[in-house]
Order: sequence, then structure tokens, then C-alpha cells
Amino acid sequence: PPGRKVLIVYAHQEPKSLNGSLKSIAVEELSKQGCSVTVSDLYAMQFEPRATRNDIVGCLHNSEEFNYGVETWEAYKRGSLSSDLVEEQKKVQEADLLIFQFPLYWFSMPAIMKGWMDRVLVQGFAHEFPNCYDSGLLKDKLALFSFTTGGSKEMYAKGGISGDIRYLLWPMQHGIMHFCGVKVLAPHICFAPEYVSEEKRKEMLIAWAQRLKTLWNEEPINCSPEWYFK
Amino acid sequence: PPGRKVLIVYAHQEPKSLNGSLKSIAVEELSKQGCSVTVSDLYAMQFEPRATRNDIVGCLHNSEEFNYGVETWEAYKRGSLSSDLVEEQKKVQEADLLIFQFPLYWFSMPAIMKGWMDRVLVQGFAHEFPNCYDSGLLKDKLALFSFTTGGSKEMYAKGGISGDIRYLLWPMQHGIMHFCGVKVLAPHICFAPEYVSEEKRKEMLIAWAQRLKTLWNEEPINCSPEWYFK
Repeated sequence: PPGRKVLIVYAHQEPKSLNGSLKSIAVEELSKQGCSVTVSDLYAMQFEPRATRNDIVGCLHNSEEFNYGVETWEAYKRGSLSSDLVEEQKKVQEADLLIFQFPLYWFSMPAIMKGWMDRVLVQGFAHEFPNCYDSGLLKDKLALFSFTTGGSKEMYAKGGISGDIRYLLWPMQHGIMHFCGVKVLAPHICFAPEYVSEEKRKEMLIAWAQRLKTLWNEEPINCSPEWYFK
Repeated sequence: PPGRKVLIVYAHQEPKSLNGSLKSIAVEELSKQGCSVTVSDLYAMQFEPRATRNDIVGCLHNSEEFNYGVETWEAYKRGSLSSDLVEEQKKVQEADLLIFQFPLYWFSMPAIMKGWMDRVLVQGFAHEFPNCYDSGLLKDKLALFSFTTGGSKEMYAKGGISGDIRYLLWPMQHGIMHFCGVKVLAPHICFAPEYVSEEKRKEMLIAWAQRLKTLWNEEPINCSPEWYFK
């Protein structure tokens, strides 16, 4: 709906890839709805995934023994996080919906996107004990994981060799998003696009565009162990 | 035992940290046993976590549309992966045991270590369909995930707010190591070292040293859904 803000965090090296198309379709469809859409194109930005001392501008809280979590928390409070993090935090702060678009790498997101999580979702900004899970600091936001897989739907079935796909969603959806208070929409998964016909890949793009049309009517999942492990 | 080779992949910024001590203890204890121990100190190496075109030396297999998985597979076969990857693959190839030592970041490994998985465990080297899971190309090797958490043991209990710690081990142990044919030893977990006494932290170090003394007698876990989700 007009006025809603969406941040797409996108991690693929190739604009012509299916991930690239899925990202473009989301920009197009959500813009058409009157949403304001921002994209963090992590590879194009050469986003830094490593959590280091460089994330703190100026002096450290404790220069004797470097503790990344403590230092970034302190730096957030005194406004001395590095500018690339501040930029990303502003985008998150303004967004009503976060869409993560990526190819599944090793049952998880690519390192460049994991680095976005590690570095952007700083204590004080995204959570601050006891403000975690339902009272996380990013509550009232939504997140959606949209990704492609190498393995087929059969491999990722319950009883399949790679186990129910929901098993691997736990760390990302519950451990990261729910921890920060973000409500999670059902994931959007394109299974094994590299092994299907061009026709099937087109259907995948159409299905995503279709889903986006009614996305704002969706209810979040119940992000508890039952959803993941039955 | 004398002659066994161990690779420790280590991801912490601070040598004085508990992770740093756990790493040093492993080097010391395993060396004392006559093992030959190699450490990949990822932050010290400024290890690159991003999966990009730079990982392929020279021309691409398909320069029209970049596909990281295909390009690194092809590059592996013709010996044109970037030298930092070749170095790590040599270390893996020689090792009988891989130890991953890290602080848990967001229910997973830090991005710098995820990047090591994404970039080093290339198709052709670590797996090559149908050689995955029990017939993965790194079979006859062992792996052990040793990590520290922010949350307490109670939070990571079944029924606890963060769920059974085993839930989050699935992508790392099954999705990565088991996929490559590596057998997995029980994880070594130090819960919430930042919130316990100096005394308790010392006990954690002693417990790790103790475990290492009889590590080679351990049986791998049964890396199937039952172990993780009961």
C-alpha cells in the first residue's frame, strides 16, 4: 500500500541470475503498489562481511581486550559506528518490511549477507537485553526470506536426505529476525532453478509477482519450534 | 596420536579472548600428543569471505552469466582457483580432523568463517554429485565445532527461549560437514563465558584440555535428524 517502506537486502553476483530477476520483480511490483523500495545490493556495494575493529570510529571502550559485541554496542550509543553500518541501520529503521533475496549457500545465507546480519544488527539498535524476541527493538517490522536452492524439493522434504527445509530456517528466522522482534512472513523458496526448464523458471518469477500482490494481507508465521520441527 | 594431522579454523579478533585460549590449548594439547597442528587464523589472515569472480584466475567458463558454483567447479578442475583457496584446500586435504573454533554469532558461525565454508568447499574438491553425504569427497575426516555462546545453557535448552542448541547445529554439522562426507564429533560448547566468573572460565579451559586427551577415542555422532530434533 502507498507509503509502506521496503528494504531488499540482495546477495547475488549476477544481475541476470534468477535471484537478480526475483529482486527486480519485487522492486517493480512493490513500487507499482506505491511502496517506497530500497535495495542493498551487497556484492555491488562490496559490502564488508568481517566484524572487526574498523567498525568502531575512534577510540575503543576497552583497548586491552577487543570484544566486538561490547565495542559495537558502546559505539552505537555514542554514535561512532562506521558509516556503512549507520547507512544500513537507517534503511532498516525506516523499513516496514525487510526482504532477504539470496541463493542458499550451505544451508544458510551467503557469507556476505551473514556479515550484514553480524554487523548491522548491533546491540542497542536491534536488541538490548531483555528486549529480545517478542520485545526486540525492531518489533512492528516484517521480514521475508526469499531464496533459491541447489537441491530439489524432494531432497528438502521431511525424510529427504537434506531434511525438511524448515530445519535450516530456524537460525535465520528465529535466531536472527525473531530475536530482534521482527515478525516473519512465510519464506519464498525456488527449488533447484538450475535444474528446471526455462518455462518453469518463468513460472517461478510469475509466482513471486503474484504473491507480492497480496503480501500485505499475509499473517506472520508462528515463529516457535512447532513451526520448524513439528 | 603421533602423525595425525589437525587443522584448526579459528575466528576471533582477540588473542586474549576465551576463544583464543581454547584455540591455544588445542594447539598445545594436540601437539603434545604428537599431532601436527595447523591453524587458519581467519581474522589475522584477513580472510576474504565474499564469493566473487576474483576466486577464479583467468578466463571464465561462461562470461555471459556468472554462476559462482559452476565457475569454481570448473576452475577447480583446471587448477585455476585463487591461491588463498588452494592453500586452504591443501590444509583440509591433509587434515584428519578439522576443528572450528568461534564465538556463535546469530545462531551460526561468524561471516568470516561462513565465507571459508562458501569458498573453500568447492564442488569437485569437497563434493561432486552424487558424492555427497556419506559418500562426500572428504570422507574419512572428522570435524568438531567448538564455540562460545552469548546466551546461557537454560536459554538453549529444549523448551528454552532460544530452543535446543542442537537445532542450530543442523546447518553447520549436517548441511556442511556431513554433506562433504566428514564425520562429526560431538560439539564443544562453552555457554555464556562473558557472564560467569573467572574461576568458571578457567574450568572451561581445563574441560577442553581434558576432552582433547581422549578425543581420538570418541565415536562420531549419528548425524541424522533424530540427533538434532529428537
